[in-house]
Amino acid sequence: MYISQLLTRAVQTKGEAVATICGNRVHTYSQFQNRVQKFAGALRGLGISDGERVAILAHNNDRYLEFYYATPWAGGVFVPVNTRLAVPEFAYWLNDSGSEILLVDDAFAGVVGDLRSQVDTIREVIYIGDGDTPDGMKNYEELLAAADPVEDAGRGNDDLAGLFYTGGTTGVSKGVMLSHRNFIVNTLNSMPCFNFKEDSRWLHVAPMFHIADGCAVFGATMGLSTHVFIPGFTPQGTMQAVQEHKITTTLLVPTMVNMLVNDPALADYDMTSLTDIIYGASPMPEAVIVKALEVLPNAGFTHAYGQTECAPLVTYTGPEFHVLDGPNAGRFKSAGRAAYAVEVKIFDENDQEVEKGTVGEVCVRGENVMLGYWNKPEQTAEAKRNGWMHTGDGGYMDEQGFVYIVDRVKDMIISGGENVYSAEVENALYQHDAVAECAVIGIPHEKWGEQVHAVVRLNEGQSASEQQVIDFAHTLIAGFKCPRSVDFVSDPLPLSGAGKILKNVIRKPYWDGHDKAVS
Amino acid sequence: MYISQLLTRAVQTKGEAVATICGNRVHTYSQFQNRVQKFAGALRGLGISDGERVAILAHNNDRYLEFYYATPWAGGVFVPVNTRLAVPEFAYWLNDSGSEILLVDDAFAGVVGDLRSQVDTIREVIYIGDGDTPDGMKNYEELLAAADPVEDAGRGNDDLAGLFYTGGTTGVSKGVMLSHRNFIVNTLNSMPCFNFKEDSRWLHVAPMFHIADGCAVFGATMGLSTHVFIPGFTPQGTMQAVQEHKITTTLLVPTMVNMLVNDPALADYDMTSLTDIIYGASPMPEAVIVKALEVLPNAGFTHAYGQTECAPLVTYTGPEFHVLDGPNAGRFKSAGRAAYAVEVKIFDENDQEVEKGTVGEVCVRGENVMLGYWNKPEQTAEAKRNGWMHTGDGGYMDEQGFVYIVDRVKDMIISGGENVYSAEVENALYQHDAVAECAVIGIPHEKWGEQVHAVVRLNEGQSASEQQVIDFAHTLIAGFKCPRSVDFVSDPLPLSGAGKILKNVIRKPYWDGHDKAVS
Repeated sequence: MYISQLLTRAVQTKGEAVATICGNRVHTYSQFQNRVQKFAGALRGLGISDGERVAILAHNNDRYLEFYYATPWAGGVFVPVNTRLAVPEFAYWLNDSGSEILLVDDAFAGVVGDLRSQVDTIREVIYIGDGDTPDGMKNYEELLAAADPVEDAGRGNDDLAGLFYTGGTTGVSKGVMLSHRNFIVNTLNSMPCFNFKEDSRWLHVAPMFHIADGCAVFGATMGLSTHVFIPGFTPQGTMQAVQEHKITTTLLVPTMVNMLVNDPALADYDMTSLTDIIYGASPMPEAVIVKALEVLPNAGFTHAYGQTECAPLVTYTGPEFHVLDGPNAGRFKSAGRAAYAVEVKIFDENDQEVEKGTVGEVCVRGENVMLGYWNKPEQTAEAKRNGWMHTGDGGYMDEQGFVYIVDRVKDMIISGGENVYSAEVENALYQHDAVAECAVIGIPHEKWGEQVHAVVRLNEGQSASEQQVIDFAHTLIAGFKCPRSVDFVSDPLPLSGAGKILKNVIRKPYWDGHDKAVS
Repeated sequence: MYISQLLTRAVQTKGEAVATICGNRVHTYSQFQNRVQKFAGALRGLGISDGERVAILAHNNDRYLEFYYATPWAGGVFVPVNTRLAVPEFAYWLNDSGSEILLVDDAFAGVVGDLRSQVDTIREVIYIGDGDTPDGMKNYEELLAAADPVEDAGRGNDDLAGLFYTGGTTGVSKGVMLSHRNFIVNTLNSMPCFNFKEDSRWLHVAPMFHIADGCAVFGATMGLSTHVFIPGFTPQGTMQAVQEHKITTTLLVPTMVNMLVNDPALADYDMTSLTDIIYGASPMPEAVIVKALEVLPNAGFTHAYGQTECAPLVTYTGPEFHVLDGPNAGRFKSAGRAAYAVEVKIFDENDQEVEKGTVGEVCVRGENVMLGYWNKPEQTAEAKRNGWMHTGDGGYMDEQGFVYIVDRVKDMIISGGENVYSAEVENALYQHDAVAECAVIGIPHEKWGEQVHAVVRLNEGQSASEQQVIDFAHTLIAGFKCPRSVDFVSDPLPLSGAGKILKNVIRKPYWDGHDKAVS
């Protein structure tokens, strides 16, 4: 299994069909492949040899897609960098991966100076924007113009193809090593979920550095579909692109769906081409689905669940479960059922499968599961025990194989022998009008082991007492789940680069001097 | 990738749904899995350990499907035997594979005595029929009743799962070694071709010993569909099953389609449930497609091309190409375009890719390609040169990636530097009313290297001279392709067990004493 095969097959069968549309730039699959072969030639000319890393820091763009194909074509390993990080975090990823070449667009050309001072490994920076090439960088189009197309380097199967860094909610960010086979198997698993066909037009609107869009980076090519790019999400930018390019399929996160379907401008655009919307990262609030089904009657919704370590697709629930009546009503709240060639089981702390309905850790086996963490053999061995990827997600499976995620395993609180899922408590507290943000954690308790504790930031101009918050929780969830104590903070809670609340940071002061690991 | 995963996933998500229907016997996926686990337990109890071979000689049946899952579940290797062979051929396969256990149904219980005298390796024979158990055999249901269900043996990925014997048109029959990964990757490739869905009902009517139906053995389970069985093909038996079980999907060979659509009884049956008919082995004559589209208006047709060594799917053309008008008209004559994760190229005799439209050998790369030939490392190395499976099929690819098969490479005739495809010449001769059967071969010629020669059997009571046959050919095909000589025979031409004409046998007398290999 070779990433190059996706492109050679597309050229073989649909060489003159449109592969990419980015603003005014349109390329057929033949042109796309020729550009990939030339950029691969340029990378080889810049000294990239088998297994060496090439990073990118950019918004969505057709050249980003070319990077995803040209880097393995040259024999290299792609390292897409999260655009939402701070410079020291960019630098950590580039140093840790040992990336030798960095591609940047206009949005990130300005940080290259800072990065150079913090990163030892970068030898060349390639500018993929359309303006004047900044000093000290090479111009992407000039490199292509000067390069000879090269043959595929021939890496495939278990060879490393890409490094994706995890958000690092549980400590130091780790580089997830994904092979050619991981990507191709994930793509095969994704095809019915994403419904890629020859007349599909995929909108790359979710960030291309994230592996969720990676399903489409490879899947839309396997489906012989057209890739369309906008730099990033805005409601009107998305509507405009859907109307202009007759987009059929895209991936959004639930907050984007919410913004889109509640935007008054929606009625001004023709969205009828959009038949498949995949969303992930978190379940969709029912109110959003009700609204979405009403205002986008042509669209089917699919909830996809996965993680970077699984390349990423694990489970999904399709449009037939995004209904409000009948036996399938509400199924969209589930993460869904195992994809084709993915094994999913719920394990207890001794790696024994639990009964249906019992919460444990979601574990995954299949050839979509990563090779391991880059330079972290111990964490790899811990995560891939007995051939099963331990996702770190706590959840249960029902009698029909639907998985429900309840919490990160590390965020579960064990209080007096009872498991408390912080996410469930947080969902309750968020229903309080005054609560702007909250994190529920376990703090040390002599008798119970851990005590349920909430850290809350209130909306400006609103107030609530500790007892009011606790009493409010008691109206919604069982007593043993309710916070016994509440601390109020005025600053926003600390977030990871991926926007997740860093509970390890919040837990730390409560546990200093105790013997529980907080990372 | 584990064959067991298909079944555990089906039970996890659709345990109470109907998995198999065979006459009055109906099993849910949970029951099916339980029976598989018990038969696996029985096989372990009979001494089958990892990698040992278990053979079956039977018509289609739900127990045949259980065999396909239980054998690898026990750690064994399944060996499905072609039911159309003679006893010495059965014996060759059983001896060559070293099969230790043989399953037989009522149709083949009678040959077990003969087989025992010719096969050293068989330790146990298991009777899977519903009558009285013949002497010296074990009863399948009694074994199940006495067995404890066992855990999956844990073999997967590159481990050998099955041995399928080729028909042997080019010499001695070879055992094709297919791994767990080969089957799962082929199944993933097959899903859009076979269109398996949760409400699909697959009819196992083509013989289950053949790997074409193997796509459904595994694919209908991946699709969470229902398997329905009839012992074999008859037009009315097929119609009856389609009507009774609301069959949605099946695989037939073109001659079966021809018999079905021309059967006067067709109008008496409700065939409206049948939406997907896959056919393979040979292209469909246009007249048959015209008729089929007329009398089965609900059905879409898919032409699948492959070979055992590729597990088997290589290319396919779907219903959108089975049309009589418009730009796709006639595309069904093609073998189709490469399946998802299959690389197809046409190579010349030096393994260089030829230009579009030029005939060469169809070569295939992908994780569907066999591990190799059982105990035949030289033939394996020859067939899998440079990682590419050399199919032995001569063909060309057009500008849209459609592959057209013209001949077996070994059946091509090179006469005066021109390539002549025997299949094309035979197609011309078959249009002569008097021709019942023919084979076109190259025979030695001092000047041209080979001379085009036809061996013809005429219909009883009809006559034609050598010159008349040659002249007839000239009215249809170019002069250099026409036979220069014709021999008439009165006996049927020699056939392989799979029903293919054995050209090596026909060629032999003409080449004895010459230095061209004829196998």
